[in-house]
Amino acid sequence: MELKQEIKVAVDAIVFGYSNNKLNVLLIKQKYGTFKNQWALVGGFVKDKEALIDAVNRELLEETGIKVNYLEQLYTFGDNINRDPRFHVISVAYFALVNSTKLILKADSDAEDAKWFPINQIPDLAFDHKEILAIALKRLQSKLTYQPVGFDLLPKTFLFSDLENLYCTILETEIDRRNFRKKILSFGIVEETDQFGNNLKGRPAKLFRFNKQKYNKLSKDGIFFEINFA
Amino acid sequence: MELKQEIKVAVDAIVFGYSNNKLNVLLIKQKYGTFKNQWALVGGFVKDKEALIDAVNRELLEETGIKVNYLEQLYTFGDNINRDPRFHVISVAYFALVNSTKLILKADSDAEDAKWFPINQIPDLAFDHKEILAIALKRLQSKLTYQPVGFDLLPKTFLFSDLENLYCTILETEIDRRNFRKKILSFGIVEETDQFGNNLKGRPAKLFRFNKQKYNKLSKDGIFFEINFA
Repeated sequence: MELKQEIKVAVDAIVFGYSNNKLNVLLIKQKYGTFKNQWALVGGFVKDKEALIDAVNRELLEETGIKVNYLEQLYTFGDNINRDPRFHVISVAYFALVNSTKLILKADSDAEDAKWFPINQIPDLAFDHKEILAIALKRLQSKLTYQPVGFDLLPKTFLFSDLENLYCTILETEIDRRNFRKKILSFGIVEETDQFGNNLKGRPAKLFRFNKQKYNKLSKDGIFFEINFA
Repeated sequence: MELKQEIKVAVDAIVFGYSNNKLNVLLIKQKYGTFKNQWALVGGFVKDKEALIDAVNRELLEETGIKVNYLEQLYTFGDNINRDPRFHVISVAYFALVNSTKLILKADSDAEDAKWFPINQIPDLAFDHKEILAIALKRLQSKLTYQPVGFDLLPKTFLFSDLENLYCTILETEIDRRNFRKKILSFGIVEETDQFGNNLKGRPAKLFRFNKQKYNKLSKDGIFFEINFA
């Protein structure tokens, strides 16, 4: 059977990182194409015999030199048939959360440059990538309130104030620190370690860690994590 | 620029209906292709200048004669490159919830037949459609607990026992009817009308209706609908 279809399939990755109390997004400078030298999300065309998830991982490695632990499918963009001026391209977008403090970026074959941008200083982006990024940010904000995804953005051990700042920063809201601490600790999934770090005022404070095994167990038992600021 | 890519793009729709206290899925019998005469989800290839959402709506109309109010993107399937024996086809899957009691099905151009199947009597399905259906059912079950989507499956006015049965049936669980009623009514989004219907025992009972405007308003104010049976 022959089937004529001119639609092309691409993947894009929205990688959120967090460092110095700022939410960042990983962008690359395009080396080729209509949008040459413009910043864009990491991504590219899927190869013929390639699984979608393999294509995202390959593009991440080729364009930025990084590997991520977990990619979640965000949405497939294909209702605007002119989103790419060359052909009708549908893009399957994935998002990832990483602790960016220790990742080393390296623009490779396909990209001119790869860099973290603070979420409030995003340059013009190629294609409809600004719109895709906005949808990804919304998803991140919403997930923060019902899944413990914030811990993916933090180092293994962190100050409680880091966790508070992360919620304040990403949700763009003030929080009642005492209630927040009480609520988070009530789930029993954040544990105090016996190590110390330095808080913003330079004073030593206890480091905490997220107990993922415990969270998975509670989840299975039907106990749900939830942080509402309403 | 020329780009060689042999991947094809399809859309599939998982349409859930509800009638006589049963959850049903809309399936069609394939008219052509490798899986000729097998049952499958509604769906097909996207046309070159066609938005994804237009493709799903077209396939629904062509294969079953129905129009739905709202389609939600479920997931894009494209990690198993052999899910279609002919070529590498990625499928963007959508799901819809309809009150099926009054819909008239009419298999058209592309389908041999179109029929509702109770969720516990699904025949063998073409491609990986059984897997896609399982994922859609999970999404429906999960959405039922945090969004008032159950009302999309019911007629405009319904008995409270219909709503209870819907939750029991879809979540495959027993519920404490008194608590459930109290909880649902506490949100203020389900209103008693002054009309009566007949319950299963043939006795007249008050009809209720869902106030969507009120729900949207509460939602904006940050008040969340939630039904947990844990």
